[in-house]
Amino acid sequence: MLTAEIIAIGSELLTPEKTDTNSLWLTARLNEIGIDVKLKTIVGDDGARLEETVRDAMRRSDIVITTGGLGPTEDDITRVFTAKAVGRELVYHDDIEQHLRERFKAWGREMPEINKRQAYVIDGSEILPNPNGSAVGMFAEFDGKILAILPGPPRENQPMFNEHVLPKLKAVAGEVYVRRRLLRVSGKGESAVDEIAAPIYTAYPDVQTSILFNKSEVEIHVAATAEQPEQAQLIADELAEKLAEALGNAVFSAHGESMEEVVGKRLIELGQTVAVAESCTGGLIGSRFTDVPGSSAYFLEGAITYSNEAKTRALGVDPAIIAEHGAVSSECAEAMAKGMRDIAGTDHAISVTGIAGPDGGCDEKPVGTVFIGYSGPRGTKSVKIVLPGDRYLVRWRASQAALDYLRRQLGMA
Amino acid sequence: MLTAEIIAIGSELLTPEKTDTNSLWLTARLNEIGIDVKLKTIVGDDGARLEETVRDAMRRSDIVITTGGLGPTEDDITRVFTAKAVGRELVYHDDIEQHLRERFKAWGREMPEINKRQAYVIDGSEILPNPNGSAVGMFAEFDGKILAILPGPPRENQPMFNEHVLPKLKAVAGEVYVRRRLLRVSGKGESAVDEIAAPIYTAYPDVQTSILFNKSEVEIHVAATAEQPEQAQLIADELAEKLAEALGNAVFSAHGESMEEVVGKRLIELGQTVAVAESCTGGLIGSRFTDVPGSSAYFLEGAITYSNEAKTRALGVDPAIIAEHGAVSSECAEAMAKGMRDIAGTDHAISVTGIAGPDGGCDEKPVGTVFIGYSGPRGTKSVKIVLPGDRYLVRWRASQAALDYLRRQLGMA
Repeated sequence: MLTAEIIAIGSELLTPEKTDTNSLWLTARLNEIGIDVKLKTIVGDDGARLEETVRDAMRRSDIVITTGGLGPTEDDITRVFTAKAVGRELVYHDDIEQHLRERFKAWGREMPEINKRQAYVIDGSEILPNPNGSAVGMFAEFDGKILAILPGPPRENQPMFNEHVLPKLKAVAGEVYVRRRLLRVSGKGESAVDEIAAPIYTAYPDVQTSILFNKSEVEIHVAATAEQPEQAQLIADELAEKLAEALGNAVFSAHGESMEEVVGKRLIELGQTVAVAESCTGGLIGSRFTDVPGSSAYFLEGAITYSNEAKTRALGVDPAIIAEHGAVSSECAEAMAKGMRDIAGTDHAISVTGIAGPDGGCDEKPVGTVFIGYSGPRGTKSVKIVLPGDRYLVRWRASQAALDYLRRQLGMA
Repeated sequence: MLTAEIIAIGSELLTPEKTDTNSLWLTARLNEIGIDVKLKTIVGDDGARLEETVRDAMRRSDIVITTGGLGPTEDDITRVFTAKAVGRELVYHDDIEQHLRERFKAWGREMPEINKRQAYVIDGSEILPNPNGSAVGMFAEFDGKILAILPGPPRENQPMFNEHVLPKLKAVAGEVYVRRRLLRVSGKGESAVDEIAAPIYTAYPDVQTSILFNKSEVEIHVAATAEQPEQAQLIADELAEKLAEALGNAVFSAHGESMEEVVGKRLIELGQTVAVAESCTGGLIGSRFTDVPGSSAYFLEGAITYSNEAKTRALGVDPAIIAEHGAVSSECAEAMAKGMRDIAGTDHAISVTGIAGPDGGCDEKPVGTVFIGYSGPRGTKSVKIVLPGDRYLVRWRASQAALDYLRRQLGMA
């Protein structure tokens, strides 16, 4: 299997606010054609370190991809120090400069002289055109190793990679293909999932299986390698199906779809509609529902009833329920769901009321206490959960639990 | 200024789904005490590459911090190959094993034999206790360079860094302090902001100023360095205040707060309340409002009126308005805001109706067309914007524009 390293260049990627995300997309593309990413580096405007990083990567790995640092300003050092690392000169290309001048003219501007730098290319490399920006890319083979130099902005580097780099890499990668499946599991912990899954996946020693906990769910990643893409897919599918069968209803997503996509698809299948009444999640469930294109087919409306008065007015929750049991109670959750369904005239309604924190908890109902209500053709019910985590996590997990509760009512295997 | 490199270890960080986020937190802590992060590396279960990476980092930089790879399973290679990189043996510590056995016993479990590995420590390094997990950390000085080895989970490495590593680094970093300010700007592009800001910040050559575009806003990062923390803060504040004054009302956040925090604080100052009526944002604005702890003081309720029928029933929008102008219109946005305010009895209400895409656009109202409505003590009005981007970005930017529209009505400088 061919190995690759990815080098992201830019001082902004070494600040506390920014992380390199280009490499995630590139890793996915490389993995699909059976190329293994072994190392990622992020380097700022430090020529010596960049030069050393590129040189080491070219020695250790078959393929080296750099992103960023190709702009016209002083900080953009990729051209100079990558050329040094591979022991080549930078060569000026008049046609690139003329092309840049024309582009600036088309925008009604004069090309700043500083942009001339972008007309220099490493000797012996192929120029990769950039229809979406001013920096061209480069592709070269030096001493049997491949070097691809791409601009930083995703709208520039992704099309350039797809059009000019991917076909060349496919040709050298040969007949090794990796196909992945992602199962997502709710309502079970990491070790409980592994206990069920391990006896199954250990029978596939050539498939890479990893189990990860992610915010509110357990993910099972399956990656099968074969000499034909169809064969790799077949193996990945076979293992994924066995795992899904063993885990049953806890697998909410068999192909990596989000919970809101899964629930939305099911509602479309059933030709049914839903509404949502939210207190502590404050619109998060509605936002997740409507994040899915086409959700207007099944998601009709929602009420964000943060205040008690709104619960009564907008949902018809009897003030006596709130007075007797509190707004955070199974009784209130059920009244919210039932009220929402009656008012909206939908097939289903879900509701959430709880204590997201950091304040508002008490001994009886600590922070993280959440009641989820459901109302549908077969009646109204609710469930109490106590969620760990900070305000963000409690709200996220409550939204996930509510969508999952609805999913289970919709009778999904 | 001392230099640092951060090495994140774990094959999961080389998958298309995961990126290293520990380094962001560590970078912030290091920057605060004047230590410059020069390079970040992510390496998987590849002993040779890890060994080389650690060796190179120890040669190039003053401080090397590794995170992850300290667990008990086969993949956890940090101990072995970091020891090789610094040319030291691993030494078994009976007291660590006994401590681990007791912890497992306290959880009612027998310690698996595999966990014995976690009792090995690089010779000559200090053991850093881990109250939150089973892997201890290490701290050492070899040949005048500092090496800190931390576990991967943030709940384990952050307390360990704060308690055991930070004080030691502070002692060696000496009297260099960096203090940052972050201004956030809405309603102006990157180059328009730079045109105003550049004449000001170029007068502070020792302050690092960078201007970044982020989703729906422009960020101005200011980092001042001085020998005293107060002095660094003073310089950062002086420049930030000058920039804020020049940019005026476009600066919505003078200390990096989010738009929803800024608006929330202002509503608390005024002792006023707000409600929101959302169509295309589907609950996102409510979710953002209620993401802020204590938001129940001013955010009372919201209506997610995705269907036309819900707009009429829940908000009292006259069906004739929708029939004549369409649901995506200034008339409908204003009727939604006015209806919401009247029903909820709040001081202010905002509304959003638009076309988030990918479908639903037409020549007259393309995807990205959004109307924002506002209703308050001085009347009702609306604004039309056309937002670029995919569904996710249109919705996010619409929510940001709506909150910003409210902010400007609240008379914020």
